[in-house]
Amino acid sequence: MRFEDLFAARARNVPTPLYGPSQPPRDLISFAYGLADPDLFPRADLLAATAQVLEEDAAAALNYGPTYARLREQIATRLRERGIEAEDEHILVSYGSGQILALLPQVFIDSGDIVLIEGPSFMGAVRHFADGGARLVTVPTDADGMDVDALERILIDLRRQGTRPKLIYTIPTFHNPTGATMPLVRRQKLVALAAEHGVLIAEDDAYGDLRFEGQPLPSLAALDSEGWVMQVGTFSKILAPGLRMGWAYARPEIIQRLALFKVEGSSGPFLTRVIAHYCQDGRLDAHIQELIALYRHKRDVMLEAIAREFPPGVRALRPAGGFYIWCRLPPGLSATALLAQAEARGATFLPGTRCFADGQGDDAFRLAFSFQPATQIAEGIARIGAALRAL
Amino acid sequence: MRFEDLFAARARNVPTPLYGPSQPPRDLISFAYGLADPDLFPRADLLAATAQVLEEDAAAALNYGPTYARLREQIATRLRERGIEAEDEHILVSYGSGQILALLPQVFIDSGDIVLIEGPSFMGAVRHFADGGARLVTVPTDADGMDVDALERILIDLRRQGTRPKLIYTIPTFHNPTGATMPLVRRQKLVALAAEHGVLIAEDDAYGDLRFEGQPLPSLAALDSEGWVMQVGTFSKILAPGLRMGWAYARPEIIQRLALFKVEGSSGPFLTRVIAHYCQDGRLDAHIQELIALYRHKRDVMLEAIAREFPPGVRALRPAGGFYIWCRLPPGLSATALLAQAEARGATFLPGTRCFADGQGDDAFRLAFSFQPATQIAEGIARIGAALRAL
Repeated sequence: MRFEDLFAARARNVPTPLYGPSQPPRDLISFAYGLADPDLFPRADLLAATAQVLEEDAAAALNYGPTYARLREQIATRLRERGIEAEDEHILVSYGSGQILALLPQVFIDSGDIVLIEGPSFMGAVRHFADGGARLVTVPTDADGMDVDALERILIDLRRQGTRPKLIYTIPTFHNPTGATMPLVRRQKLVALAAEHGVLIAEDDAYGDLRFEGQPLPSLAALDSEGWVMQVGTFSKILAPGLRMGWAYARPEIIQRLALFKVEGSSGPFLTRVIAHYCQDGRLDAHIQELIALYRHKRDVMLEAIAREFPPGVRALRPAGGFYIWCRLPPGLSATALLAQAEARGATFLPGTRCFADGQGDDAFRLAFSFQPATQIAEGIARIGAALRAL
Repeated sequence: MRFEDLFAARARNVPTPLYGPSQPPRDLISFAYGLADPDLFPRADLLAATAQVLEEDAAAALNYGPTYARLREQIATRLRERGIEAEDEHILVSYGSGQILALLPQVFIDSGDIVLIEGPSFMGAVRHFADGGARLVTVPTDADGMDVDALERILIDLRRQGTRPKLIYTIPTFHNPTGATMPLVRRQKLVALAAEHGVLIAEDDAYGDLRFEGQPLPSLAALDSEGWVMQVGTFSKILAPGLRMGWAYARPEIIQRLALFKVEGSSGPFLTRVIAHYCQDGRLDAHIQELIALYRHKRDVMLEAIAREFPPGVRALRPAGGFYIWCRLPPGLSATALLAQAEARGATFLPGTRCFADGQGDDAFRLAFSFQPATQIAEGIARIGAALRAL
C-alpha cells in the first residue's frame, strides 16, 4: 500500500519555501535580510537574567507551566504607555510575531476570503495568508505608506460586489520594505474605514520602537476604540531575534482563538521568565536607546554612501526608523538585472519583486542597514553603485 | 457589522480545554500530573551551557537562524545508539513532543479519518486527533500494553468495510497512564500489522529512557525497516519540561510536512544551542542515571505505601520505568467518587475517565510518583487509603 495515500488533502503537496533569512557567505556584503546587529546583543544582561531565573525560580521555570504572567504584564504595560488600552486578556505571547501572523489565517480565513495587503509588503507574513487560502488584494503605497484613498475605493467596490474582506495587513510605522511611516490623518482614516466596513486591521508594529527622529505617532491600535485593530509585536528588533519571542494584542475573542491554534501551548515557562527578568528595571528601554543610536548611525552612513555612489536617477526613501531603505530605479532599469550585477561585485539586496504578491516591484529594491557594520555599508553600497553604472 | 462574522468556520466555537498540568495548591498532595521532580533540575549545568552559548556563539544564537544543527545530530546519534537508523533528514526539533502530536492531524487527518488509540491513553495527545476531525477507535490494553490481537481484529474489520485507518497512536514503553511495557513479541506483531495494513504508527517514547530495571527492549521504530513507524521524543522527562523541547523521528516526507505546519519556523537558535551545549560530553546521560535512581526510589516508596495503605482489592500495576502507577478498583467502586473523598482528605490523582476517549475508566486511576517528594508520597497514599476505606 502506498504510504503517500495516508497524507491529508492539505498535506499532499509540499511547496518550496519562498525565502528565509540566512547568514551570507563571508565575502558577500549582504543587505538582503533584516538581521539584527550582533554587536549590540546584550549577552551579559541575558546571562544575568538566566542566572536569576535559575537561582530564584527554577522549580517553576523548568517544570511544565504556562507562559510567565509577568511577561504578559510587562507587554501590556508597554502598550498602555503607548496609548493602547491593554489588559492581560488582550495579550498572547508567541514564538515570534511571525507565529501570530502565521496563525491568523487559521482564525479568520475560509478558502477564498479576501485579505488586503500593501504593495510592497513583508512577504514572510503575506505568504501565510496565501497558504491559508486567502485571495490577496494589493493596495498601493507611497512615501506615506498605504494609500488609504485607494483602499477606500477597493472597499467600496468589494461592498458593491457583496464581499466583506476579512483582514487588512499593514505596517504603518517604519514599513518593511519601504521604511515609510503613515501620517496621523491617514491612520485615522484607515481605522475609520476598518470600522465602517467591518474589517479587522492586523497592524504589524515590529519596528515601531526604533524611531530615529521626530515625535512618535499613535499606532492604529491606539486610535481604535472598537476592537477593529489587532497588533503584533516582537522582541526580535529590540532585543534578539534568536530568542523567538513576540506577542499579539487583540480583543479577547481573537486571543482565545489564536491560543487555540497555537497547538504547542505556552511559550515556555523558562524562556518567558528569562526575557521578563531581562526587561525589568528599565533595562529594555535603556537598550532600545542604544539600538536607536546605532541604527540611526548606520542609516546615515548608508544614505551618505547612496548619495555618493548611486546615479542621481535612483531615488532612496529616507526612513525615520526601522531597518530598511527602499530604492526606486529610473525607468527601464530592472532590479533583478541589477542583483546579478551586484552579486558579481560582492554585494546583495532584496529585489522589489520579492516584496509584492503580484509580480510588481522590478523597479525597486530593499536595502537593510541593520546587520552590516558601518564600515561594510559604505563598501557594499559602492559595489552596488558600480553595478548600477554597469547596467 | 458583527465582528464575530469575521471568524473562519473552524474558529467559530472555542472549546474549553480538557485539562492541563498545573501546580497544585500547597496543602494538597497531588499525584494528578506527570510533572518532573524539581530537585534534580540541573540548574548549574544549564547556566553553564547558557554562558558558553552567549560567550562563544552569541552572534548566531541571538540572530535569526535555523534550529541548531548539532542538536539534531545529537538526537540522531542517540536514536542510532538505540537501533534506529536516524539521519539528519529524519529529525524535526519541536517545542515539546506535544507540538508534534498536535501537528500530526494537520499532516494526516481529513475529516472522519480513523485513528486507533489505546484505552487508556494520554488524552493530551488524543484530544488533538479528535480536534483535528479524526474518528477515534479504542484498542484495549492490558498489563502488557496494547492488545495487538484485538488490534488485528479491528484492522481486519475495517478492511472489510473498505476503510484504511491513518494512524495508530501508542506508548509501548512505560505507558501513560498504565506504566505497562509491551513485550518484544507484541512489538514485532504491531509493526508487522502496521506494514500489512498500511497504517502509520506514531510511537510516543516520552519515558523510554527512564528504565528502572530489566533490559531495554527495541522501540517500534527500531523494529521497523519500511518507514511505517514514526516516533516522538522529548527533553521534558530527561532534562526539564519548562524548556519545551522535543522532536519527531520519521521518514523525510513526514518531516517535511510537519515542518510546513510548524508555522513559526525553527525552534529557536538560542534555546536549541543551550540544550545542545548542555547535552554534550555525556552530561545528559549522566543526568538520566541520576533521574533513574531518584524515580525508581519514588516508585518503590509509592508501591510500599500502596501495599500498606490500600485495601487488598485495589490492584496496582508495577511499572519498570516512567512516571505512573495505574490502580484498578474492586468491582462496584468508582474512581470519581474516590476522587471526591481523597480531595476532602488532601490528596488527588487522575481518575481513569480522564484517560479514555469513550467514557470508560471509572474503575481505575493514575498516580504520578514523579513530582512529590518521597516523604509526601507516603502521606498522600495514606490519605487516599483512608478515602478508599471510607467509600
